[in-house]
This record gives sequence, C-alpha cells and structure tokens, in this order.
Amino acid sequence: MSDPQFQKLIQSFSSLPGIGKKSATRIGFHILRMDPTSFQSWIDNIEEAKTKLRFCDECGGLTEEPICSICLSDRRENGILCVVEQPEDIFFIENTKEYSGKYHVLNGAISPLDGIGPEQLRIKQLMNRLDSGQINEVLIATNPTLEGDATASYLSTVIKPMDIKITRIAHGITIGGTLEYSDQYTLGKAIKSRLTL
Amino acid sequence: MSDPQFQKLIQSFSSLPGIGKKSATRIGFHILRMDPTSFQSWIDNIEEAKTKLRFCDECGGLTEEPICSICLSDRRENGILCVVEQPEDIFFIENTKEYSGKYHVLNGAISPLDGIGPEQLRIKQLMNRLDSGQINEVLIATNPTLEGDATASYLSTVIKPMDIKITRIAHGITIGGTLEYSDQYTLGKAIKSRLTL
Repeated sequence: MSDPQFQKLIQSFSSLPGIGKKSATRIGFHILRMDPTSFQSWIDNIEEAKTKLRFCDECGGLTEEPICSICLSDRRENGILCVVEQPEDIFFIENTKEYSGKYHVLNGAISPLDGIGPEQLRIKQLMNRLDSGQINEVLIATNPTLEGDATASYLSTVIKPMDIKITRIAHGITIGGTLEYSDQYTLGKAIKSRLTL
Repeated sequence: MSDPQFQKLIQSFSSLPGIGKKSATRIGFHILRMDPTSFQSWIDNIEEAKTKLRFCDECGGLTEEPICSICLSDRRENGILCVVEQPEDIFFIENTKEYSGKYHVLNGAISPLDGIGPEQLRIKQLMNRLDSGQINEVLIATNPTLEGDATASYLSTVIKPMDIKITRIAHGITIGGTLEYSDQYTLGKAIKSRLTL
C-alpha cells in the first residue's frame, strides 16, 4: 500500500483543491477499479478539455476561441463591464440570469501580504478597455473579503476621474465568504441592488 | 461557461466519489490554470499508476505484481488471515502496525437489497485458502454496518465446521461507521481486543 505508484496516484489527487489524503485514497481506488475503456475515456475527456479550452484575450473568461462568445455577442450590453476576480465568477453570475453586460476578469485580487499589487492583475487591460470610451458603467463584483474590498476601492479610485459610473454588488453576500459559495438567488439580488460607490 | 468541453471536464471530476458539482468546477479551473508541463506530468502519473497497479491474485489487495508483497512475505504470520471488504482496508489496518498476518479481500459485503450474495464476493477463494489447512485463525474485519455484520455472521457459519478460530475486530469502532474513517489508534485497539465469535 506504500507502493510508490499508488503514492503518486494519491498525490495526483490530493494536489487538487479541496481534496485531502483520505478522499484522494478513495478516488485512487475508484480509478483502479474502473474498467480500462471507461478509464481511457475519462482521461481523454480531461485531456481534450485541457487542450481545447483557453482564456479569452479580451475579458479573461473561459473560451475555446481567442475571443469568447460573451465578448463577441451583439445581444449583450456593451456599455457595462462586470469586473470579477476569477474566470469561474462569470459562470456564477451568468447563472443568476440578472446580468446582460460584458465581463472583465482580474485573475485575482490585491493582496499586499501575498505580494499581489495592481500590476499583477489584469487592471491595465481593464483601463485600456475603459479608454475606448464605450463603457459607461463598471460593476465591481470582487469578493466581499479584505482583498476584494481593497481591489474594489483601488478600482474605484483609478476609474473615478474617467466619468464612468462605478457600482458594486452589495446585498446578500455573506461578509468573509466568496462569490463561488453564494446561491444564485442571493447573488442575483446582490446584482439587482447594487450601490453606486 | 456552458461550454460542452468544460461540462465534460466538470463531469469527469464530479463522477469521482465524494466530489460534488461545485468542487468539480473548482478542480476544473485548477486544471485549466496548470501549465502544460505540470498538467502532462499530472496525467502521466495517473495513467502510469493505472497501468502498473493491479489486484493480487491471492488476497485481492493492491500490487504491481501478480502476487502482492504481503502474500509473498515470509516475515508475516501465515496462520492468520484478516478478511476485509475492500483492498483499501488493508492500507488502514497496516497503518495501525498491530497486525502481522495475511489478508483476504472480499470485494464488498453481503447485501441482499443490492443483489450481493456470497457468490458475488471472493468467498470461494477464501474457502480454498482455508482448505489448505495452514490457517488457524480468521480475523473478520468487515465494517460494523448491517452488510458487514451479515457478512461476518455468514463467514462465521461457513468457517465454524472447519476447526479454525474465528475472531472479529470489536473495540472502539463506531457503530454505523466504516473502517476507512476510524483513526489508526482506535482501529489498532479494535484489533488487539478482538473477540472470539
């Protein structure tokens, strides 16, 4: 059981977010019990997704093409940009069906302790998009955490001189929690009742 | 985000035991963020383990060879056989360092509701091993659940005529729980204070 191959298998799974050693062991045995055909199609699905999926050159969201379908869509509002920390946040907001504008992913939040400042985030790309003059509202949907708040207030400061309305989702999100774990109704309400900063 | 490739990726992970849709989504994005080299070695490790690992022809435990190192070892007691439901249970018992005999994996437990009777388990193989006459104790370490208890009492009935001592780990295991989630000390104590049936 201390077999090095099995250790490597467990290690592969315990390196994934949210999976401890016991869960990794269970998953490892599940993999070993799979018949070779199911296993191969399991591996193939993951490899194919990894090969085909990428992040949008414009907004940073998930896509199979250089520019994602939300950025290319002419059925979405062009004047409003929702700023999120992670590409998966787009997924959670789309799920609420309360937002029809476009997105911008920062790839993180400002966190001095972790050495993450504005330069490490996709803020320059955001400013370039705002410079185009087509955007009249920026909806900040960073997480209601220390880092998310710091990012929101930084963005608010740098965008303010540009004569663009700045809003932030506000209602219903538990303080200290993350966007990912809000249910879609709470998150939808938070978008509806956003406050002007 | 409703991208079919991404859905397939999430599906691959949510099909694993103990992983729900939200965890699968987080893992999916983790995979997409991995650099291609790390991803390839992650995939390679899993594929290599799946190819090299198999179940022992003798005891049913995890091994890279036809017969596992525990079955082949001459430093382990040959007269005692510990019967477990799953190959991973060997791992948990080895971890206690309280047992030095050999093992026999049933690959499940008797469960009439799921259509699992003695014929679906590796009980015939167990009886063949007992017929060799070398075994003087069978330590039943099935889980303390309805199915595990049913299996233990079935085994006790069929082994009794053979003049073999039958014991069962007893102390400290939470009723209704599973071997997997016992800590190693409780499980070790349970092995030490086993009761003759």
